[in-house]
Amino acid sequence: MDEVEVETVADPDLDDPAFVEGLPGVGHVGKLAAEHLVEEFDGELVRRVHSEHFPPQVTVDEASVARLAAAEVYAVDADGRDLLALVGDFQAGDAVGQYRVAEAFLDVAEAFGAAEVIALGGAPTGEMVDEPAVIGAVTEADSREDFEAAGVEFRESEPAGGIVGTSGLLLGLAPRRGLPAACLMGETSGYLVDPRSAQAILEVLERRLGFEVDFATLEARAEELESVIREFHEGGGPEPAEPEEDLRYIG
Amino acid sequence: MDEVEVETVADPDLDDPAFVEGLPGVGHVGKLAAEHLVEEFDGELVRRVHSEHFPPQVTVDEASVARLAAAEVYAVDADGRDLLALVGDFQAGDAVGQYRVAEAFLDVAEAFGAAEVIALGGAPTGEMVDEPAVIGAVTEADSREDFEAAGVEFRESEPAGGIVGTSGLLLGLAPRRGLPAACLMGETSGYLVDPRSAQAILEVLERRLGFEVDFATLEARAEELESVIREFHEGGGPEPAEPEEDLRYIG
Amino acid sequence: MDEVEVETVADPDLDDPAFVEGLPGVGHVGKLAAEHLVEEFDGELVRRVHSEHFPPQVTVDEASVARLAAAEVYAVDADGRDLLALVGDFQAGDAVGQYRVAEAFLDVAEAFGAAEVIALGGAPTGEMVDEPAVIGAVTEADSREDFEAAGVEFRESEPAGGIVGTSGLLLGLAPRRGLPAACLMGETSGYLVDPRSAQAILEVLERRLGFEVDFATLEARAEELESVIREFHEGGGPEPAEPEEDLRYIG
Amino acid sequence: MDEVEVETVADPDLDDPAFVEGLPGVGHVGKLAAEHLVEEFDGELVRRVHSEHFPPQVTVDEASVARLAAAEVYAVDADGRDLLALVGDFQAGDAVGQYRVAEAFLDVAEAFGAAEVIALGGAPTGEMVDEPAVIGAVTEADSREDFEAAGVEFRESEPAGGIVGTSGLLLGLAPRRGLPAACLMGETSGYLVDPRSAQAILEVLERRLGFEVDFATLEARAEELESVIREFHEGGGPEPAEPEEDLRYIG
Repeated sequence: MDEVEVETVADPDLDDPAFVEGLPGVGHVGKLAAEHLVEEFDGELVRRVHSEHFPPQVTVDEASVARLAAAEVYAVDADGRDLLALVGDFQAGDAVGQYRVAEAFLDVAEAFGAAEVIALGGAPTGEMVDEPAVIGAVTEADSREDFEAAGVEFRESEPAGGIVGTSGLLLGLAPRRGLPAACLMGETSGYLVDPRSAQAILEVLERRLGFEVDFATLEARAEELESVIREFHEGGGPEPAEPEEDLRYIG
Repeated sequence: MDEVEVETVADPDLDDPAFVEGLPGVGHVGKLAAEHLVEEFDGELVRRVHSEHFPPQVTVDEASVARLAAAEVYAVDADGRDLLALVGDFQAGDAVGQYRVAEAFLDVAEAFGAAEVIALGGAPTGEMVDEPAVIGAVTEADSREDFEAAGVEFRESEPAGGIVGTSGLLLGLAPRRGLPAACLMGETSGYLVDPRSAQAILEVLERRLGFEVDFATLEARAEELESVIREFHEGGGPEPAEPEEDLRYIG
Repeated sequence: MDEVEVETVADPDLDDPAFVEGLPGVGHVGKLAAEHLVEEFDGELVRRVHSEHFPPQVTVDEASVARLAAAEVYAVDADGRDLLALVGDFQAGDAVGQYRVAEAFLDVAEAFGAAEVIALGGAPTGEMVDEPAVIGAVTEADSREDFEAAGVEFRESEPAGGIVGTSGLLLGLAPRRGLPAACLMGETSGYLVDPRSAQAILEVLERRLGFEVDFATLEARAEELESVIREFHEGGGPEPAEPEEDLRYIG
Repeated sequence: MDEVEVETVADPDLDDPAFVEGLPGVGHVGKLAAEHLVEEFDGELVRRVHSEHFPPQVTVDEASVARLAAAEVYAVDADGRDLLALVGDFQAGDAVGQYRVAEAFLDVAEAFGAAEVIALGGAPTGEMVDEPAVIGAVTEADSREDFEAAGVEFRESEPAGGIVGTSGLLLGLAPRRGLPAACLMGETSGYLVDPRSAQAILEVLERRLGFEVDFATLEARAEELESVIREFHEGGGPEPAEPEEDLRYIG
């Protein structure tokens, strides 16, 4: 196998697609959001990316069929707006690998004539968040306005620790190819998978890119999760107000 | 030394051999099972594999002779059924190395015209198991039937964390060469070397591949181990029922 | 991206510049000192260095603009004395990367005809230091005299553990190019960012290289830090004498 | 710098030298022994080996002069018996590097026409040892006799965990070049630098290779160490018999 291998599964013509990244990260916010787009708009798998820098691992599906660790790119027709959604269960495990895999992702974006890159993720707050804000970072200062109009908050020098992993590198490397990029980070506790924060990001994307998506499955998932948390706390005794605040469980 | 080096020790003609992997892993179940085949059927060493990705280490044998860390492939004539058994004391220590060594193993399988790859391992349950089931994962859904007939259980999306290491990569990489692959995982506590789980896997292999093997040495080893555990518990005071349940010792 | 990439931002003619390194390290002493020179003398960015061995990360500035992890070299006119100041937020994360990035830094030094390399850092003492000495190590024994005249102390076989990271490698690799090098280490507790130790190093550099720099901002920063420490201790109860001695906080 | 770089410092003609390795390891037994040979017989530095796989580090000598992390090979004339002694403060930090550096060491051995490789090290016992035995492992079973005659003990399948690091790889890789190799391991607690164990190894080497070396400095060092340990225990209260038995200090 090559160090990074991009397999072409389909090659549709897309119209200035936005390349939307949602690999695993804080609260799986970006992953939930990007996967929701693929599911709701019935995305078409166009590329599969394998790499020696991914974990030496297969995943096993419902039919007990094993598949090599991969990231996948789907073409998504979102109400007539073309997107490319990058999803998967893995990031590269070492720094050199992260750089090489990120370049491969940008090669895919360029091959489809992507107009911009939007990395999705979570911004950990350390406490439960009722109405998660969506924080942004961009590669060109004058692109802030459009994102602000869509509801993104830009906070001076935040996140303080920078942005790490694939999301960070897409922002770091895209401008070297003339591609503008942004990162949208939904506030989230950092302790739990967070469908509400994913929804907050998607609402921004709806306004920014001009589509509408149904949130029923994300909402159902959020309610299910909240019900589990409630039961967990009730089982532990009466803690009525803001019971979730100190949870440390990734569900 | 090359990054991965395959030394040809012998080159017998084999008839559509099954390539059976048993490197160290959970409960050493796969290793015990594959080594048992090599010993009982008096396997012939055909390939020795060294790699810069194996630990920088030699093993020392009964004669105080040191040998470089290696994986070995044996040709095994199991009642007329040809097998290749991959055994050894090491896996590669980094992700890139795991991929490269796994490709070298598949090169060997192909060189002998292997008909299929069967990776053996343990499925950790966290508690002592009296009658270990054998869980399976495959690369082609329609191969499940044959394994089920041999006693393998297929459980939806299990193991949940996927399959890691050499076993996982053989499943992930074999189909890219047109080779079907399966992983058979014997249930095991995860705390102890488990000859009973190895026997359960071998009983499946007997039915699947059509051979019979003597289990006397594996059974002796299991009884010896169980006797040690009993003494350990009796020394610690009266704990009659299911005394092994919380052992954390790899013997 | 190449493994190490040096981007030319400007290419001024410099007169036998000293190449002064101040990447992050113990007490951020070297970083504070080198950045102070860039700020006070209004340095000009001449090179930007990226590497796959830097963390896969972007930093986010006050305008929420993300920039790929980088080290930067500034040309600094210090009262007519030409310097090159190497600053940044990162060191390479693995040994091979450290060597390759250090060679790239020395390529830059050579390209500008640097006369010598001076690495700046902190020497951890484990306790608060009122008047930090500046400890030195050199690549040529007869260069000690000049540094001693500037106030550097040379202590036999110190630091005992050697000098690690970029500072160490610049000393290790520069002589192979015929470039003399020295490392100046300001004593510092090792627990706190230490502007006073950075000032001690800069006072040595002033004498050694022949320039004068204003310390007002460093002093303000030191006082602010000391005031925070005092408050921290007063909040914790009356600890009048040497209250800082057991702090373990990097501010 | 190249990945591994061998600098020729001198190129004397040697007569079938034994290549004796003493890099840092358990109890620094091998390092003490090999350095003792270099010092007592006034060895001549013949090769310096640098590598990107060594720590990114310089050591600082008594004159405050920094030197890049290196391993060094000395030609030693031991009463007319030619030796090559490999000494230094570092081993490679990763598996691939260990293999590549070990091959470079063997290149040096071959360039001088070495007749055999003898790796020196410590065998940890977990408790203080009064009269350390010297345990051996070899690459050719029939070379055991000569070592046994010199006082080496060969114990079946010991050390149980094999031999790791440079010592292990020299044994693993030398036979691939037709070079016989052995590893001599002095028993040692594993908790302390152990000059007595180093002396035990050297006494074996004297008999095996036919030279005599003065042990005064090693003995002085051992007595100094034992005196420190005694004081440590007397300070801690009356513990007359075998006071060293549970020390966990590397001096």
